[in-house]
Amino acid sequence: MINDEWSLIDRIASVVSDSPAPKGLVKGIGDDCAVYNNGDGTFGLFSTDISIENVHFDLSYCSASDIGYKAMAGNISDIFAMGGDPVLALVSLALPVQCDTSFVDELYSGMNECAVKHGLSIAGGDTSKSEKVIVNISIYGKTTCPVYRSGARSGDSIFITKWNGSSRLGLEVLRSGDIDRNMFPVSVSQHLRPSLPEDIGRRIVKPFSPTSMIDVSDGIVSELTHICGTGNLGYIISHDALPVSDEIVKFCKMTGKNAIDYILNSGEEYGLLFTSSVDTSTDDDIICIGRITESGAFIQYGNKISDIENHGFNHFREYDI
Amino acid sequence: MINDEWSLIDRIASVVSDSPAPKGLVKGIGDDCAVYNNGDGTFGLFSTDISIENVHFDLSYCSASDIGYKAMAGNISDIFAMGGDPVLALVSLALPVQCDTSFVDELYSGMNECAVKHGLSIAGGDTSKSEKVIVNISIYGKTTCPVYRSGARSGDSIFITKWNGSSRLGLEVLRSGDIDRNMFPVSVSQHLRPSLPEDIGRRIVKPFSPTSMIDVSDGIVSELTHICGTGNLGYIISHDALPVSDEIVKFCKMTGKNAIDYILNSGEEYGLLFTSSVDTSTDDDIICIGRITESGAFIQYGNKISDIENHGFNHFREYDI
Repeated sequence: MINDEWSLIDRIASVVSDSPAPKGLVKGIGDDCAVYNNGDGTFGLFSTDISIENVHFDLSYCSASDIGYKAMAGNISDIFAMGGDPVLALVSLALPVQCDTSFVDELYSGMNECAVKHGLSIAGGDTSKSEKVIVNISIYGKTTCPVYRSGARSGDSIFITKWNGSSRLGLEVLRSGDIDRNMFPVSVSQHLRPSLPEDIGRRIVKPFSPTSMIDVSDGIVSELTHICGTGNLGYIISHDALPVSDEIVKFCKMTGKNAIDYILNSGEEYGLLFTSSVDTSTDDDIICIGRITESGAFIQYGNKISDIENHGFNHFREYDI
Repeated sequence: MINDEWSLIDRIASVVSDSPAPKGLVKGIGDDCAVYNNGDGTFGLFSTDISIENVHFDLSYCSASDIGYKAMAGNISDIFAMGGDPVLALVSLALPVQCDTSFVDELYSGMNECAVKHGLSIAGGDTSKSEKVIVNISIYGKTTCPVYRSGARSGDSIFITKWNGSSRLGLEVLRSGDIDRNMFPVSVSQHLRPSLPEDIGRRIVKPFSPTSMIDVSDGIVSELTHICGTGNLGYIISHDALPVSDEIVKFCKMTGKNAIDYILNSGEEYGLLFTSSVDTSTDDDIICIGRITESGAFIQYGNKISDIENHGFNHFREYDI
């Protein structure tokens, strides 16, 4: 019985770790990308992500184009999380035989739109039939200076690149059946066709020299757990520093839900979270939300400090659409 | 309704072809691998393959280790088909939640065994739950001199690297229910854990300077159709030159089936088929089976020449397990 994605990954890593790593492999399992030293001053970045109907998306409210766009965005996000530029992607597509060919056209149009926007190309793939729609993308990118999950130090500031909470809010609106999606257009759009941070090299890597970086695919708290776990560290987040979108305020007022829970535990946001010895940001889209400490996981409300629990996504415990 | 894998791939290629290719991309959709010019005299090779329960394998006669081994072998074969050396692979694994963790261990042991044998490393991946077992592998390899499917010329000799027909024979034995698999051990093993040709650079690329190369994943006739299609060519195969294994002779005698059909139309063989201006082979495992012509598809029995039809696998028409 498999009920924990992270212990599954540990299990896999232990089977694989017995084998000799090929020359040039700098980082294997355990980061957003595998990193290979090309030997010419550049590093190859490799990542892969699978999207499965009724696990990662629901055809009742996602168009084929949305599915393609989002699957590509999730992969590009992994390259960005290492400070890299995407180069090319391969797509494995499995479809029910009764699927209409226009579905394929729309799916690839969505993928291609996202790919072209970020300067990469769909360069190959595989096709098969299946009972459900399955899209697996594998991506290759390059960088001269990879940024890893590990490397954060006690005292570093923690930055995020965008509003968080929108993707989960958008999902809940889409699944509710009775909330008008036009009331929450930004959140719905962020869930279906996530926008990604742009110009990572100029805006993050150069000015901040990040000590660690990760993309927010499982929620801020979950990502901080990864970053701190690699160095046996902790963190404290400032409640007042967390950016809250107008739509989250409106939604939580309407439903009585807790805005902070959305902001800290929303998956599939695909913003970046990074740590740096730089204290402040002059970029409006890059926000300091706290700092790395020696242990623990806390949130500060004024003078009050509370524990934080990790409620990030676990693909084996719950549907993550 | 999708019923033809090749027209689906053409459709996908046409959606993607509208976009600008990134600098360095030498070959996109349409070969065993995408090819990227690393700019240092080497080329990166990229491929991906999806394996789905009840489409590509059947748990009633495939062990988890077999599934892993074969999925990895199929990917390595794509790198070999471009004359390259595999470097690393990423694995997307989707499993039913009720799956036992020992299944995961065995699956990865099989993948890893095949990877280690051919000098590459499993360097990352993704996990998800699903209703069926799904294994998607994406692979990266390198070469200094990629060999493409295109490039064959009229008059070139056609070579294969191994017996063909065994994988299909093995599959039929496994699915029969009443044929003892111990009577056909080589064919059953070739279907479950395909052996790959070794030392491609020294044994093929250097002595033969292949004008084109492809791996036999869909059958000899199907692969020749690809090779000839890119150059508007034809071919003639010599019946007497085709190697026939003892097990095929025994099986066809037992069942009344036609050995040539097995040899020409057996998929998932993962040997190599290549063309060359070199006429003969002194390597017992590399066999000249015919030559490229200006048009048509023929087989010669003594003085008689017959048409050949393409009965290769089509993943949307039939189960290919």
